[in-house]
Amino acid sequence: MNTNDFVIFTGNSNTELVDEICRELNVHKGDIVVSHFNDGEISIDIRESVRGKNVFVIQPTSSPVNDNLMELLIIIDALKRASAGKVNAVIPYYGYARQDRKVRAREPITAKLVANLITKAGAQRMVALDLHAGQIQGYFDIPVDHLTAVPFLAHYFAENHKELKPETTVAVSPDLGGVTRTRSFANRLHNVPIAIIEKRRPKANVSEVMNVIGNIEGKDCVLVDDIVDTAGTICKAAKALKEYGANKVYACATHGVLSDPAVERIEESVIEKFIITNSIALPPEKNIDKIEMVSVAPLLADAITRINSNNSISEMFD
Amino acid sequence: MNTNDFVIFTGNSNTELVDEICRELNVHKGDIVVSHFNDGEISIDIRESVRGKNVFVIQPTSSPVNDNLMELLIIIDALKRASAGKVNAVIPYYGYARQDRKVRAREPITAKLVANLITKAGAQRMVALDLHAGQIQGYFDIPVDHLTAVPFLAHYFAENHKELKPETTVAVSPDLGGVTRTRSFANRLHNVPIAIIEKRRPKANVSEVMNVIGNIEGKDCVLVDDIVDTAGTICKAAKALKEYGANKVYACATHGVLSDPAVERIEESVIEKFIITNSIALPPEKNIDKIEMVSVAPLLADAITRINSNNSISEMFD
Amino acid sequence: MNTNDFVIFTGNSNTELVDEICRELNVHKGDIVVSHFNDGEISIDIRESVRGKNVFVIQPTSSPVNDNLMELLIIIDALKRASAGKVNAVIPYYGYARQDRKVRAREPITAKLVANLITKAGAQRMVALDLHAGQIQGYFDIPVDHLTAVPFLAHYFAENHKELKPETTVAVSPDLGGVTRTRSFANRLHNVPIAIIEKRRPKANVSEVMNVIGNIEGKDCVLVDDIVDTAGTICKAAKALKEYGANKVYACATHGVLSDPAVERIEESVIEKFIITNSIALPPEKNIDKIEMVSVAPLLADAITRINSNNSISEMFD
Amino acid sequence: MNTNDFVIFTGNSNTELVDEICRELNVHKGDIVVSHFNDGEISIDIRESVRGKNVFVIQPTSSPVNDNLMELLIIIDALKRASAGKVNAVIPYYGYARQDRKVRAREPITAKLVANLITKAGAQRMVALDLHAGQIQGYFDIPVDHLTAVPFLAHYFAENHKELKPETTVAVSPDLGGVTRTRSFANRLHNVPIAIIEKRRPKANVSEVMNVIGNIEGKDCVLVDDIVDTAGTICKAAKALKEYGANKVYACATHGVLSDPAVERIEESVIEKFIITNSIALPPEKNIDKIEMVSVAPLLADAITRINSNNSISEMFD
Amino acid sequence: MNTNDFVIFTGNSNTELVDEICRELNVHKGDIVVSHFNDGEISIDIRESVRGKNVFVIQPTSSPVNDNLMELLIIIDALKRASAGKVNAVIPYYGYARQDRKVRAREPITAKLVANLITKAGAQRMVALDLHAGQIQGYFDIPVDHLTAVPFLAHYFAENHKELKPETTVAVSPDLGGVTRTRSFANRLHNVPIAIIEKRRPKANVSEVMNVIGNIEGKDCVLVDDIVDTAGTICKAAKALKEYGANKVYACATHGVLSDPAVERIEESVIEKFIITNSIALPPEKNIDKIEMVSVAPLLADAITRINSNNSISEMFD
Amino acid sequence: MNTNDFVIFTGNSNTELVDEICRELNVHKGDIVVSHFNDGEISIDIRESVRGKNVFVIQPTSSPVNDNLMELLIIIDALKRASAGKVNAVIPYYGYARQDRKVRAREPITAKLVANLITKAGAQRMVALDLHAGQIQGYFDIPVDHLTAVPFLAHYFAENHKELKPETTVAVSPDLGGVTRTRSFANRLHNVPIAIIEKRRPKANVSEVMNVIGNIEGKDCVLVDDIVDTAGTICKAAKALKEYGANKVYACATHGVLSDPAVERIEESVIEKFIITNSIALPPEKNIDKIEMVSVAPLLADAITRINSNNSISEMFD
Repeated sequence: MNTNDFVIFTGNSNTELVDEICRELNVHKGDIVVSHFNDGEISIDIRESVRGKNVFVIQPTSSPVNDNLMELLIIIDALKRASAGKVNAVIPYYGYARQDRKVRAREPITAKLVANLITKAGAQRMVALDLHAGQIQGYFDIPVDHLTAVPFLAHYFAENHKELKPETTVAVSPDLGGVTRTRSFANRLHNVPIAIIEKRRPKANVSEVMNVIGNIEGKDCVLVDDIVDTAGTICKAAKALKEYGANKVYACATHGVLSDPAVERIEESVIEKFIITNSIALPPEKNIDKIEMVSVAPLLADAITRINSNNSISEMFD
Repeated sequence: MNTNDFVIFTGNSNTELVDEICRELNVHKGDIVVSHFNDGEISIDIRESVRGKNVFVIQPTSSPVNDNLMELLIIIDALKRASAGKVNAVIPYYGYARQDRKVRAREPITAKLVANLITKAGAQRMVALDLHAGQIQGYFDIPVDHLTAVPFLAHYFAENHKELKPETTVAVSPDLGGVTRTRSFANRLHNVPIAIIEKRRPKANVSEVMNVIGNIEGKDCVLVDDIVDTAGTICKAAKALKEYGANKVYACATHGVLSDPAVERIEESVIEKFIITNSIALPPEKNIDKIEMVSVAPLLADAITRINSNNSISEMFD
Repeated sequence: MNTNDFVIFTGNSNTELVDEICRELNVHKGDIVVSHFNDGEISIDIRESVRGKNVFVIQPTSSPVNDNLMELLIIIDALKRASAGKVNAVIPYYGYARQDRKVRAREPITAKLVANLITKAGAQRMVALDLHAGQIQGYFDIPVDHLTAVPFLAHYFAENHKELKPETTVAVSPDLGGVTRTRSFANRLHNVPIAIIEKRRPKANVSEVMNVIGNIEGKDCVLVDDIVDTAGTICKAAKALKEYGANKVYACATHGVLSDPAVERIEESVIEKFIITNSIALPPEKNIDKIEMVSVAPLLADAITRINSNNSISEMFD
Repeated sequence: MNTNDFVIFTGNSNTELVDEICRELNVHKGDIVVSHFNDGEISIDIRESVRGKNVFVIQPTSSPVNDNLMELLIIIDALKRASAGKVNAVIPYYGYARQDRKVRAREPITAKLVANLITKAGAQRMVALDLHAGQIQGYFDIPVDHLTAVPFLAHYFAENHKELKPETTVAVSPDLGGVTRTRSFANRLHNVPIAIIEKRRPKANVSEVMNVIGNIEGKDCVLVDDIVDTAGTICKAAKALKEYGANKVYACATHGVLSDPAVERIEESVIEKFIITNSIALPPEKNIDKIEMVSVAPLLADAITRINSNNSISEMFD
Repeated sequence: MNTNDFVIFTGNSNTELVDEICRELNVHKGDIVVSHFNDGEISIDIRESVRGKNVFVIQPTSSPVNDNLMELLIIIDALKRASAGKVNAVIPYYGYARQDRKVRAREPITAKLVANLITKAGAQRMVALDLHAGQIQGYFDIPVDHLTAVPFLAHYFAENHKELKPETTVAVSPDLGGVTRTRSFANRLHNVPIAIIEKRRPKANVSEVMNVIGNIEGKDCVLVDDIVDTAGTICKAAKALKEYGANKVYACATHGVLSDPAVERIEESVIEKFIITNSIALPPEKNIDKIEMVSVAPLLADAITRINSNNSISEMFD
Repeated sequence: MNTNDFVIFTGNSNTELVDEICRELNVHKGDIVVSHFNDGEISIDIRESVRGKNVFVIQPTSSPVNDNLMELLIIIDALKRASAGKVNAVIPYYGYARQDRKVRAREPITAKLVANLITKAGAQRMVALDLHAGQIQGYFDIPVDHLTAVPFLAHYFAENHKELKPETTVAVSPDLGGVTRTRSFANRLHNVPIAIIEKRRPKANVSEVMNVIGNIEGKDCVLVDDIVDTAGTICKAAKALKEYGANKVYACATHGVLSDPAVERIEESVIEKFIITNSIALPPEKNIDKIEMVSVAPLLADAITRINSNNSISEMFD
């Protein structure tokens, strides 16, 4: 398969990102129309032959998650039946990733279900970005190329927020589950120390408080998360940091889900700036000043080039 | 497995129908909460043990089709992981059924994709009602119990619209694809004759017209369809019948999708009465006088009882 | 994979057709001996290496259907184990296609079973011709290239039976299930009108009669079917057309199964000429004057060339 | 599952054997009509409900092997779709068993293909009798109950041919592949010695001869095989034994395929008596005096009873 | 399936634990001999019928991990082929659990591979105990009952080490990955506060040190882990706690792998007592005074009883 | 795929053989480190990109069989996830091959289980050498290239042991199961005659003796086997031959498992020379004078070249 033989398709999830990737790669975007019938059923019209081609379907399964996921599955089905050479699902944001294990009785493991659906539809490779849990790679038996935007985010702070001095900055995990991610970010940002916030009920019948583990007094803090959804936890965490004596508080996350009332909360929070990537399309009305966006298009474009020409992906992160 | 050991669950698609089925069966509805997080992801909470139980999940995959389908898949996933004895998917309306073959190049076969998804999620039986094409049964390798409401609809006309005399009534297919369904309905309605409407362009550069094949002059007509979606075709068909000399025109369909602007069209059409079933939930604002609804709850309740006690389904339609 | 790297194999089903395709493609026929042991078991001897080759196995599963199907499956098994690059099953006539759904209780869906068997044996693509139901495409999850001979048949009439004038010709479906096929044929034959024949019992205890829906009086009729098996229905339909006042009656079908007593019936029928293709081998004793045969070898050869060089199949029918 | 809940079905392969098994078990034979349409396609009509039942489909895949195999597969498909509780394939003679490995280049392994087809069709258990190679059990991942008629055959000789004295009898394998089977038979027949016959070409350009390894001079010989097909090898073996000085020669085999010209050969051979079982139906014209038949109906009936009531099969052969 | 119809088997991995479970359940241990041939191949001899039985195979895949895993797989294979009704794999310690995602390029995900192998061998349910990552549940599509010994361990401390006062005790995670587990333990132990230890290199070219996040000065510490393997990290962590001013240091872990030189390290460490469970067999020579063992036999026996009688597992942990 | 695009990897099973193959092929050995953690878990580190490459993993699954098999499976898993183009498992010795069917009740069929594991892990081709039973090929549905060293062994005798004269040499099978293998060897060694040894108990309560079938008096004998494990049977067979009057006795086998006490037995036996291949690594202390080793590296190197360039394997044995 030579390097000219690939084509990129997308549904409606994040066309701006895909346009940007195509510009990076200097290729045309595959000619497809993905629309909805009056009753909401998805209609797919692929307007160019894909026979024998190496096809990349780029589609974050962000909100509306079920529609975007079904678009992805139906596009894969159509490509497979249309004799595509190979179908690669590129999923910059993997919806349902947080339902990745049973915590309570009789819960689904929707992240695994989704992996099964994508594989059953016919995808032969998955490309993902900062999966909520690394173990989700193992939900697939097809190859998964797992990219990370964490170095991008750290680099962005280093370049654009030089007010954060290495010696007075702390990276903070807003909850117990994000500690290793925060450490990984901190390593890339001058190897600064980390602190952790936990929600705890000090005694029975006493309301939950944000407890800070580690030393942040007088420090500038960067809260680090993978997904910012309603921004409730992270904004409360920022408030707690201030209360415990932090200087300025910043925040970052790879995936800006920003469900209501996230934007209002961020706007009203003590957070100075919130850095996210464009893995999920951000509607203009949510694009407030406090939010700064880093593009992952160069990252994804590089990955696609490497995959298509059989070059190492791991070298991207050396 | 004795007959007490089954339980019925549902998502949000058509809770009224499921409540009615539970009343018919005199069983409680399985305790489940199916809600959506702020970002639209589906959350499932099954609040009673299902270990070893014969579970029926009743969920028409009507609009919003992708949400309803994903609810179904996630419920099945949760039940399977919660050690349900057997998971039966009862799908009174099968969304995407009309995308059942490739007509143009590079189309998906979404009806098959959906069958694969349901099977992969873990369903061990499918119960369906008036599938758009009987061949969809073959999309599954698990047992499919295919029910039909056509005798119910014919019976309803015979009992409630005695103004339709056998000798002066014609059953009419609104398009070429519905001819055998129309014949089957006519057999149940005093074995009346049938006629067919086709959309045709008489010559190049001349606009499409509704052509009536068969004799309907001076006759009362009953248009027969399986799915009424936007009601465009069937209302035009009714108009054509009138123009060709029909007396009164009625219509019926098993599945009332009634996407906009269906209700307006029916309201303004020459159709006297439009009979549908409650396979799909009808919001009150769409429940206009012209639409009469037949409940399929007794049919589905009977089927569930028979399946659970290993009695023949085919005897229901003898 | 370059275009020289393919090879064609066949069993015993229709060697004449395969020879003709090989001549069209100017390739040698793959060296294989498919014979039967004394006890009827099939013996396969593939006498040339197929490693890494793109292999096309052309085998209509016509009568003796079980032998021809097993030949196909065993050849595919042998090719797969012999490291063929890709195995494409080209099945000009798909036996058991009419058993494509459960109509009565406890019927098999043999058309799906056959699809499963072909896939399980190792086929990676299916090429079919005028499948009895388009939905059979969905019985496969491997790519299906579905060809049609209908334009060939219409073209044949237009060129070779100019006695059929557009303004006085009607295309007739011999039963309710063939209406859309008839319309499709009619569109290709000067867009002539259509009529439909249904078998009906006018009253209980009265014998079944052939009822004509639509206007055929004084018209030349072309009966259109996909499969002509024992020719009972189509010959009775022709007789009925005559009784209802038709002028001349012709017939056509893609697949000439012609089980006994089809040839006698056609011979004695009012049908002027019966046009079929060579998708199924016609033994010389059945090759009566009334039957005219159109070859699908050019169609299949073109499809194989396009598949092998990754060119669009849909363009063939634009 | 209690012991009343099972039902036995069969196709057309060996209805006498199945009738005998039903008599042994004192159960009615499942009501099924398996016929062929005019074009040879198999038609199945199961005339009683099988929901939740433990179903045994007894069908040796003897000649016509492809028809009998397809009958079996289609019956299994129909039962699975008709909600049978469990489908057990009872295959007293397993056609294609001798094609169980690649000996020459590019051969199929049809015995494995057949195993895959049976499993794919939906069988959940296989019951077999004297498989040509024990390894065929491993071709299945469903449970296989492998029965043997060898003790029956040995017992038959001991009871009915007392002219064979232990001290002067030798069991003989007619070829190198049947040595362990012959030893197993000999163990059951007074633990007599064994000898082996091999076809060998003593020098290049010299014709093949039957060579006897072991001492048979002046002995009565019993040739032992699993399958007697055209009887060529075994009749030549018998002749060779005589030439090497054997006294009387008998023969036995579990499966009497008896393809032409087997019966003529046996008739004209030096073999005194040829004992076979009724695993394969023997047409009356082949039932010559020299052939004596042992029924395996009691063996199969016992196995079915044990399987249905979860009793050990291995105890049958202790 | 009634509650008497189950049987417990095991290989050689932890027979003491299985004996204890059988005593708890008051059932005999299934009669099986699992030995090794001279060349190391595993030999299985199941000496009682398992037809239709609900079988539990209890086998931690601890060291020698590959032998214990293969024993498990081969036992499952034998049971499946021997017509066991249902095969439940009970795996108190899941070997390879730590290889659950790709961290470096081209790593295997052995934890998923193992899940695939267990499922492919034929297990229909998995029962696990304190999986290294909860996401491993999603590596299976069969039901997984995930038990936890954490409440047992916390309860053990509360009952047996009353010298630990709630107000002066801190639960400590020995690394960043174990924070949520430590919190969960702390919740059960008087809801004490937590601290975290991280290995960090303060500057480039400076050696790695153990950094304590959170306040432990003057406190008694309980280090909490799921698996203690070579005990290197946890012993260094204990030392660091002391250096940072901790009072007494205890440790606990569900799974005592205790590879060399774990026991020496623990012996020589500042740890007072190390509590583990008997999920893995502890050889007598490793059973030093500092190690105290809690039995999970009652936990596993309860789970087996509940699974076999279709009672809720989640209620065990309410 | 051109011939430069392949790479060879191995685990720890037989690195000498793999080095020799790489020298034969003049390629570097793929850079991989396969080690064991302290607890025995296997650790894999593949240190070069394999994207799109045709990978051959050479690993006999000899003793320690479970470790070597798991190494193979984990390497395959890692390669698949690392986007290898195609993964070919080259298994010169197939462990567990002798457990290839159920002989006693409730035995596993481990040889099939292993085939399932290899396929499930992701191998797309199997290359094997002198499988214990040819039917094991059918345990796979991926292509199997089955090589044989028998011609090598025969050739070795002809060239290096000219003291064996064609007219006075007999090839002897040490048991009833190896007769066809012995005949095949004999055909390659001047077409010498064969004899067979069986273990038999002449009467009840009398101990088992080695019985020779065929004429070996005064002849030189070559015992032929596929696997020599503890060498018990073959050494007793050699002794029996001597007792029955044989002149010199040699032995050969493709696979030298040589479990204790094989070497001692061979040393002390009447066998002159024992010829084996290097399919299994032979530790120096077992390399006694009586054992002569033939290398299969040229054979495997040739096979790999042919597979990689799509040339026929069967031509190797013409």
